[in-house]
Amino acid sequence: MTDDKRKVEVCFSPVMFSDFRNDAAVVVIVDILRATSAIVTAFMNGVKSIIPVATLEEAMDYKKTGFLVAAERDGIVRDFADFGNSPYNFRPEVIGGKDIVYSTTNGTQSIRMARESHRVLIGSYLNLEALVKYIHREDRDLVILCAGWKNKFNLEDTLFAGVLAEEVLKSKRFGTNCDSTYASVDLWNLAKNDLTGYLEKAAQRHRLKKSKLDDVIGYCHTMNLTHLIPALKENYLTLVENK
Amino acid sequence: MTDDKRKVEVCFSPVMFSDFRNDAAVVVIVDILRATSAIVTAFMNGVKSIIPVATLEEAMDYKKTGFLVAAERDGIVRDFADFGNSPYNFRPEVIGGKDIVYSTTNGTQSIRMARESHRVLIGSYLNLEALVKYIHREDRDLVILCAGWKNKFNLEDTLFAGVLAEEVLKSKRFGTNCDSTYASVDLWNLAKNDLTGYLEKAAQRHRLKKSKLDDVIGYCHTMNLTHLIPALKENYLTLVENK
Repeated sequence: MTDDKRKVEVCFSPVMFSDFRNDAAVVVIVDILRATSAIVTAFMNGVKSIIPVATLEEAMDYKKTGFLVAAERDGIVRDFADFGNSPYNFRPEVIGGKDIVYSTTNGTQSIRMARESHRVLIGSYLNLEALVKYIHREDRDLVILCAGWKNKFNLEDTLFAGVLAEEVLKSKRFGTNCDSTYASVDLWNLAKNDLTGYLEKAAQRHRLKKSKLDDVIGYCHTMNLTHLIPALKENYLTLVENK
Repeated sequence: MTDDKRKVEVCFSPVMFSDFRNDAAVVVIVDILRATSAIVTAFMNGVKSIIPVATLEEAMDYKKTGFLVAAERDGIVRDFADFGNSPYNFRPEVIGGKDIVYSTTNGTQSIRMARESHRVLIGSYLNLEALVKYIHREDRDLVILCAGWKNKFNLEDTLFAGVLAEEVLKSKRFGTNCDSTYASVDLWNLAKNDLTGYLEKAAQRHRLKKSKLDDVIGYCHTMNLTHLIPALKENYLTLVENK
């Protein structure tokens, strides 16, 4: 790539993020199963704002002050919480018009970690096309931060990083010299014709199945249900203006 | 996988290694371009032992006490060193019968990092088949630690992790539920029919080319030139007994 292009990079794990720090960049957080898919769904269903918190202690403190709280660890809803991490929990009648608090195993930590960046966006298949348009318009370096699983690489976030990178790179304003971006794009192209078949082997699929939470996999891989893009503003998520 | 199998895992970066710590496991260090390929070559050419050191300061201290020292950063030989990181430097007339000291940008740190494991082996295409046989015989969990580039994922180490994992998994004694292992195997199968063509896009290939150090890429991707396996013993590398 030539130096005048906007760089596209993929970071496979929060634990690698310090080497991708670029405060002038747009960072897209990816936690397909299920945090970022759930957040986008919540905004589709009319939530007013979401405060992403890294620790359960913070989530509990918010609960005490009257907030509606979604909190899970390892796929299990925590006792004190109102509900857990399935997109299906974020129903209009539950969250419409509300400010809610959200804490998950991997996704919400990643959001907080990237907060010094120019812009932190929430990425999912549900709002893919809107993201691509927004990123092209912003015309800045892009870091795609995969939340992974407990600091490890995962397949489902990587495949999404691949399609997002591939779409963004269709604009000649963008380029890459990042090996993890190439790997993501190649894995996406290997998997795209049978995404759920490819993900049969993914560890998270087995975890969700074991807890009978795998009913959301098809939904979380549905493209372009919305043009809404949640973004971090100070310490909470709200919608970006997206014309 | 069932629980009675030996686990195969791939760690894409030294910065992720703490989540793969398994002191009962065999760890294979991979830094194809060029540290682990150079180390295997040195043993092929009769080196007696290699002390891998993480910092240039340590390397300099050894130099003062009379050791032959190979040391580079970012592909550039350091002033005080006798030579750098190309496998072609480790010639029989230079290193035969000697104990030498070695410090590189990524590879030697990874070796040191894994030292608490049951066994730390040096992996390269040059000794692939011997490694697979040895790992099958050891019958323990396997962690393949890619040295990467400055804590980032790289393609050349990942492809080797893929072929090594695939070969080890041919024994029914071994299994995996590790997403990075699946990704490595898939990328290997995508690249294997034209390895150097696939690696055209790798960042390290461009770095080496820029420094006119890319003459080693073909050699470093040559399979099974030797049955020798260097392994860490206390603080130095020597050959494992391999019948």
